[in-house]
Amino acid sequence: MSDTPLNIALIGFGTVGTGVARILTEEHEQLRVRAGRELRLSRIVVRDLGKTREFNPADVPISSCIDDVLNDDSIDLAVQLVGGTDAALEYATRLLGAGKDLITANKALICAHGPELFQIAADGGRTICFEAAVAGGIPVVNAITTALTGNRIEAIEGILNGTSNFILTQMLSENQSYDQSLSLAQELGYAEADPTLDVDGTDAAQKLVILTRLAFSTDVPVGEMSRKGIDELTLSDLEAAASLGYRIKLLAMAKLNNGQLETSVQPTLVPQNRELAQTQGADNIVTITGSAVGRLGLAGAGAGQLPTASAVMADVVDFATGRAINTFKAVLRSRDQNPVEILPQDEQKHRFYLRCTVDDRPHVLADVTDILGRHGISISSLLQDESRMATASDQAARLIIMTHRVSEGQMRSADAELDALSCVQGNCLRLPVAD
Amino acid sequence: MSDTPLNIALIGFGTVGTGVARILTEEHEQLRVRAGRELRLSRIVVRDLGKTREFNPADVPISSCIDDVLNDDSIDLAVQLVGGTDAALEYATRLLGAGKDLITANKALICAHGPELFQIAADGGRTICFEAAVAGGIPVVNAITTALTGNRIEAIEGILNGTSNFILTQMLSENQSYDQSLSLAQELGYAEADPTLDVDGTDAAQKLVILTRLAFSTDVPVGEMSRKGIDELTLSDLEAAASLGYRIKLLAMAKLNNGQLETSVQPTLVPQNRELAQTQGADNIVTITGSAVGRLGLAGAGAGQLPTASAVMADVVDFATGRAINTFKAVLRSRDQNPVEILPQDEQKHRFYLRCTVDDRPHVLADVTDILGRHGISISSLLQDESRMATASDQAARLIIMTHRVSEGQMRSADAELDALSCVQGNCLRLPVAD
Repeated sequence: MSDTPLNIALIGFGTVGTGVARILTEEHEQLRVRAGRELRLSRIVVRDLGKTREFNPADVPISSCIDDVLNDDSIDLAVQLVGGTDAALEYATRLLGAGKDLITANKALICAHGPELFQIAADGGRTICFEAAVAGGIPVVNAITTALTGNRIEAIEGILNGTSNFILTQMLSENQSYDQSLSLAQELGYAEADPTLDVDGTDAAQKLVILTRLAFSTDVPVGEMSRKGIDELTLSDLEAAASLGYRIKLLAMAKLNNGQLETSVQPTLVPQNRELAQTQGADNIVTITGSAVGRLGLAGAGAGQLPTASAVMADVVDFATGRAINTFKAVLRSRDQNPVEILPQDEQKHRFYLRCTVDDRPHVLADVTDILGRHGISISSLLQDESRMATASDQAARLIIMTHRVSEGQMRSADAELDALSCVQGNCLRLPVAD
Repeated sequence: MSDTPLNIALIGFGTVGTGVARILTEEHEQLRVRAGRELRLSRIVVRDLGKTREFNPADVPISSCIDDVLNDDSIDLAVQLVGGTDAALEYATRLLGAGKDLITANKALICAHGPELFQIAADGGRTICFEAAVAGGIPVVNAITTALTGNRIEAIEGILNGTSNFILTQMLSENQSYDQSLSLAQELGYAEADPTLDVDGTDAAQKLVILTRLAFSTDVPVGEMSRKGIDELTLSDLEAAASLGYRIKLLAMAKLNNGQLETSVQPTLVPQNRELAQTQGADNIVTITGSAVGRLGLAGAGAGQLPTASAVMADVVDFATGRAINTFKAVLRSRDQNPVEILPQDEQKHRFYLRCTVDDRPHVLADVTDILGRHGISISSLLQDESRMATASDQAARLIIMTHRVSEGQMRSADAELDALSCVQGNCLRLPVAD
């Protein structure tokens, strides 16, 4: 047991910061045993000093100026829980420059600026930890960087956005529309007033970028990652998928295919017996396929005050014991490995679910299947359903087509022709099917 | 990157040892990057030099004498994959005494002799790692000792024995008897010729002892852990449970109840929507409930050559980077925490599933329910079923009773009276119901 405490500054004192402060205070003795030294919350920096707070740790100076941390040589470690990327990047850079080690839960920051921050840390002999940036309380960064080091990672598949998963679960279980479920998610605090980044897949894609760097030493910018949101899905899609033995999930996926890397974040039909399909509500899950371990599943709370604080605290204790620096050095070394070639989106192959709303008149089915046939797309099953039209007029029928395995490119070309057919109302919805 | 290789000796070259040697050989370059130094397999010790082997690493001296490792000062780390406890304890003690760090996958050894080995290691400044001793490729030791350090652990529930889970899954899905499924498990290599330790719960109990020490700083000897095997279960029990919305699983459980520790390994009715119930075949799962993280689930392969080698290799890389010593020191420190009081088995409260085979004659139901009533046991549901008797004669009926929450002690006393009733054939089967 060391006599030297680890002096910690908390930058940002919102939901997660309050959770971290609570744990540091309430579990003080147990943490001392686990960390081998006292973990001392020494300073807190907030944006607005006047705000009323649910928890105020005793005897911890609170200020609104980050210089109070930068200039305090006794501070070893900064736990930076500031959102966004502008101020967060500036703070992180200055904290590292001032010789502080850094923990952050900010996925947008690590996704957009991880490589440059890592280099700054490497140059200054500092360490960055970010377990809480991906999947909240689920230790997925830990799994990839320590537990699976004997494996070549072959695939990562995950439900990395709790908001979307809550909405999709709610729609199917309560027979609600997308809008109804979104409103409920907002009422319950699972979705923000502007839910765009959650429901359009951006949030999950940022997390997937981080995991892809760690697992495959390859940087796929979030803008180049194939991405589709859940807002085009209707209850009838979820029901049709369920009747075929699938659940539709916003699946984040990065996997090797003959040595090339496929990545995407999109609503995907997942066989209902897989644990990914059974993940309900706001929970997250990550399954990692490794060359030795096979498929490993990690499931739990992907957000929330205490689950996210649990991940932050794991990083804090790792700093205190000396594990963090060793893990971070390994992450830095892995940057020198050759990145994997990225498989162009159009060459990714899946089975597909295709839903088209079509005029209810002769020869429509012939027109549709002719286009698919000409693009070499083989149909595995087809359902024409006139009874349960959620959105279309009485003059319409719904076609649900499951294809055999084809490339995105083939499917995309066929899709464009389908959308141009006069008998097709609106656009067809095309979703991949997970193996 | 260090120029000094980590020299590793492999003691035992069976299934898992071969997997470890394969990974050290085939992933040599990648491991060097991750570990920051070369991981060199320097010596192998086997029992029988004459045996034909599926994999022979080039240029690695193989001997049948452990002295070759003990006397080789260049060896840093011994990966000891010898089964049983007698020779394994002797080897471990001598290896630690010779200044070698130790990795083992031997759960029986760590369960029975962990505390004394840890003390020997502590005295000599050595480290012991044992991720592979519990749940094969699932990093549950890592989760408790590093990822969840910000939590007070409240409960651990798991399916820690793949053999039993394979048998139970197979019985229900294929309408097989216990004996038929056991035979198939033996044919497929999931069960040994003598399956006793797997099906009677000993194997799972040994693993639970290890996890209980780590999570609760409390030593519950395997002999004092409440334990029941799966060999009394019939297909009709699994079917009755399924019709009530449950799966019967061999559940290993350690949890705090008002500050007291409950532990048991027994067939348990698990609500079918829980991930524990959905774990199929030979897979393992562990769910850990922490004060901050909530319920975290870890699922994957609990045995097998490469999954177990994956866990061993995580420990090897942890040694090479320097993480292992820091984690082991924390495990040593945690021994000084006060152990938790153990809740006597008779005071553990559950809902119960009770199955009795009774004579098909008047007043039987009155006799049975009178006994339950007099012991203060309230019935939640009762099913008398004459049509699907797997084992009893035509003159018999089967009673399935689900109780409300009562103590094991109440249930045990009632049980004894039930078994003594002249109308009850054989003994009643009593299983707890998980919350």
